[in-house]
Amino acid sequence: MKGLVVLGSTGSIGRQTLDIVRSLPDRFKVLGLAAGNNLELLASQVAEFRPEMVYHLKGTQDDLLPPNGWRYTPMDEMVLHPEADTIMVGTVGREGLFATLAALNAKKNVALANKEVIVMAGGIVTSQAVRNGVEILPVDSEPSAMWQCMRGEDKEVLRIFHTASGGPFRTRPLQELASVTPEEALAHPTWSMGRKITIDSATLMNKGMEVIEANWLFGVPIDKIEVVIHPQSIIHSMVEFADGSVKAQLGPPDMRLPIQYAISYPERWENPTLPRLNPIEVAQLTFEQLDLKRYPCFALALEAGRKGGTYPAVLAAADEVAVGAFLAGRAGFGDIPKIVEAALSAHETVEYPSLEDILGADQWAREFAARQIPD
Amino acid sequence: MKGLVVLGSTGSIGRQTLDIVRSLPDRFKVLGLAAGNNLELLASQVAEFRPEMVYHLKGTQDDLLPPNGWRYTPMDEMVLHPEADTIMVGTVGREGLFATLAALNAKKNVALANKEVIVMAGGIVTSQAVRNGVEILPVDSEPSAMWQCMRGEDKEVLRIFHTASGGPFRTRPLQELASVTPEEALAHPTWSMGRKITIDSATLMNKGMEVIEANWLFGVPIDKIEVVIHPQSIIHSMVEFADGSVKAQLGPPDMRLPIQYAISYPERWENPTLPRLNPIEVAQLTFEQLDLKRYPCFALALEAGRKGGTYPAVLAAADEVAVGAFLAGRAGFGDIPKIVEAALSAHETVEYPSLEDILGADQWAREFAARQIPD
Repeated sequence: MKGLVVLGSTGSIGRQTLDIVRSLPDRFKVLGLAAGNNLELLASQVAEFRPEMVYHLKGTQDDLLPPNGWRYTPMDEMVLHPEADTIMVGTVGREGLFATLAALNAKKNVALANKEVIVMAGGIVTSQAVRNGVEILPVDSEPSAMWQCMRGEDKEVLRIFHTASGGPFRTRPLQELASVTPEEALAHPTWSMGRKITIDSATLMNKGMEVIEANWLFGVPIDKIEVVIHPQSIIHSMVEFADGSVKAQLGPPDMRLPIQYAISYPERWENPTLPRLNPIEVAQLTFEQLDLKRYPCFALALEAGRKGGTYPAVLAAADEVAVGAFLAGRAGFGDIPKIVEAALSAHETVEYPSLEDILGADQWAREFAARQIPD
Repeated sequence: MKGLVVLGSTGSIGRQTLDIVRSLPDRFKVLGLAAGNNLELLASQVAEFRPEMVYHLKGTQDDLLPPNGWRYTPMDEMVLHPEADTIMVGTVGREGLFATLAALNAKKNVALANKEVIVMAGGIVTSQAVRNGVEILPVDSEPSAMWQCMRGEDKEVLRIFHTASGGPFRTRPLQELASVTPEEALAHPTWSMGRKITIDSATLMNKGMEVIEANWLFGVPIDKIEVVIHPQSIIHSMVEFADGSVKAQLGPPDMRLPIQYAISYPERWENPTLPRLNPIEVAQLTFEQLDLKRYPCFALALEAGRKGGTYPAVLAAADEVAVGAFLAGRAGFGDIPKIVEAALSAHETVEYPSLEDILGADQWAREFAARQIPD
C-alpha cells in the first residue's frame, strides 16, 4: 500500500488521482488532501477518503469540514508525513514550488503535474531530487511517455519526437486567431484538463513548457526535442535511441493513465476502469510539421528555455497573468504572446539563479504583465 | 569486440549482417562464415572478413576459396569457437536447427533469423536456452520490436499488437489470388527479403509463424497476440502492459536495424549508414483488421500453433515444399494453403515431441506435401 498526499485535490489532476485511488482501494492510503478553491468538493473528498491531514488555502470551516480525526496541516508540513511515499503535486502555477522542495528535502518522490514548478526552478528542483536520492515522476502524458520509452534503456537519446495535438486552432485561418473567445479556446479537441492548461494548450505554451520540462527531467538538449503535430493524441511521444530505433508510448487521451503510472511506478497495475487502446478503431495516426507563425507562445517558450537563467520563470509568470486576463475577458487571445514577449524583452536575467532570484523574477514578471493589460 | 559466426552468410540476412560489420569494423570480429549456395559471394566474403572458419554446403573448392588461414569447419563445430559471443542463424528452413541447438549447448547467444527453427522445435530450443543461461535474440523486425518494447518492463503483458504489412495482395480482388505469379508475389511493398520469406509474407504464413515464435520467445499466449494490418511497416509491433499503457517500436523498414540490435544487444550503437525515421515524411500510419479469408495460411499457422505438438513442424515443412513448388512454377499461389492444410489434416501429432519426433514429422510432411504437387 502506497501512502499518498494529494496537493490540489479538487483540481483536474487531483480529482483524477482520487479516481485512481477509488478504483484501486487496496493499493493506496490517502494521508493528506490540500485544495485551493472548491471547499465543498474538498469536504466530500475528506468524508470519502478520511485523510489524517487536510489543508485549504482559505482556511477550514468546521461546518463544511467536520472534524473526524484529521488535523489541519499546511502543505509543506503535510509532505513530511513518515508514511507518505509519493506526493502528487497537482496545484496550478507557482503554488506547488515550496511544497515540491519540502517534499524532495523530506526524501519523498514527487509526482509532478504542476509543470510551472520545473519550468521556473528546474535546476533547483532537479538537483534537490538528486541530492536526496528521490525521483520527480512526470504526470503529464508527453513527459510520461518519454519516461516510459526510456525505461530499461541506457539514457543515450538521439532525439525526442514530442507530440502535440495542435489544440483547437490548428486549422483556423491565422488572421482569425487574435479574436477567438475563451469558450472556443477551452474546447480542446482531445484532452479534458483544467482551464489554465487548456488555454496553454491552445497557444502551445504548454508544449513549449513541456520541452523545458523534458530538458530538465531527462537531460536531453532542447534542440534534440522535436515537436511534431499529431492531432489524434494517441502517440504521447517517441524517443529515438543511439542506433536509430524509435520507441513510442500510446494510449487513449485520458490523464488517468499517466497519473496511475506515476503513482504506481515502478509497478504497473491492472485497472479495469481505464480505457484501452484499439488500433483498428483508431484507424490512422498522422504527423504534421509545427507552424511557428501559428504558435508564437511556443517559440517564446523555447527561446526562454534556451536562454535559461530567470527567463523561464518570467515566461511562466507572465503567461499565468496573461491567460488569467484572457479568461476574464480583459485581454484577447492574441495578447497572450504579446504580454509574454514584452516581459521577456524587458527582463534582466540572473544566470545561475537562487530560489530568491527566481521568486523575484516571478514577482517582477507578474507586476510587469499586469501593467500590459488594458483596463 | 564481439566474436561473430554467421550461418547463411550469402543469404539476405547474412549479407545484411556483414553490412553491419562493415560499417562498424571495430565492434565485431567475424570468426566463421557458412553458406549453402553462392560460392562466389562466399569467396569474396572470406577474402574481405578473413574468418578462421569457413563452411559451404556443397564442399569447398580451392580455386574459389584459396586457403588464407581459414579451416573448413562444419556449422555445428563452428558455433563452438571459444571467442564466439553470438551466432547469427540466417539459414533458411530447417537447416539451422542442429546448429542452433549446438550453439545453445555451447552457451552461445543465438541471433535467430531462421524462424522455422523455433516454429518446428520451440519447446526444445527455448528450454535449451534457459538450461544453458543464454538468450535467443530475435532478428525479425516484429519479434525484435516486441522484445525492445518489453525491455526494462516486467513481463506482464496484456496483449501484443503484432503488425503485418498485408503483403502485395492486400487489396487484390479475392478471386484473382489463386492465379498470381511468383514475380507478383516476390514484389513485396515494403520489405526487401529472401525469396522464401517474401512468399510467406504474401500468404501471411510468415506472420502466423511469427505469432508462434512470439508465443515461445515471450511466453505470451497465442490468443493475446492480435495481428493488425499496418501497410506502412513503420510500427513493427506494439505491446500492451498490465495498466493498459502501450509501447511501440518504430523504424524505417530496413532489416539492418533489428539485425544490429540483435548483435549489439544489450548495447545500442550509433551507425551513420542506417536510415532514420522522419515522422513528418511518414505523415500517416494506418491500421486495418486482418481478413482471414484473404490469408488462409495465417489461419492454418495459428491453428497449428494452438494445437502444438508436431503440428507446427508439419506446417513449416509443408509450407517450404509448397512455396518451393510455387516458385518453380509447379504449383499455383492458391495451392500453398491447400497443400499445408492437407498435411495438417492428415498428420497424427505427438503431444510432447522429442527432437526425433519433430524430425520425423518434418520428413513425413515433406514427402506428403511433395505428393500433393501435380506433375
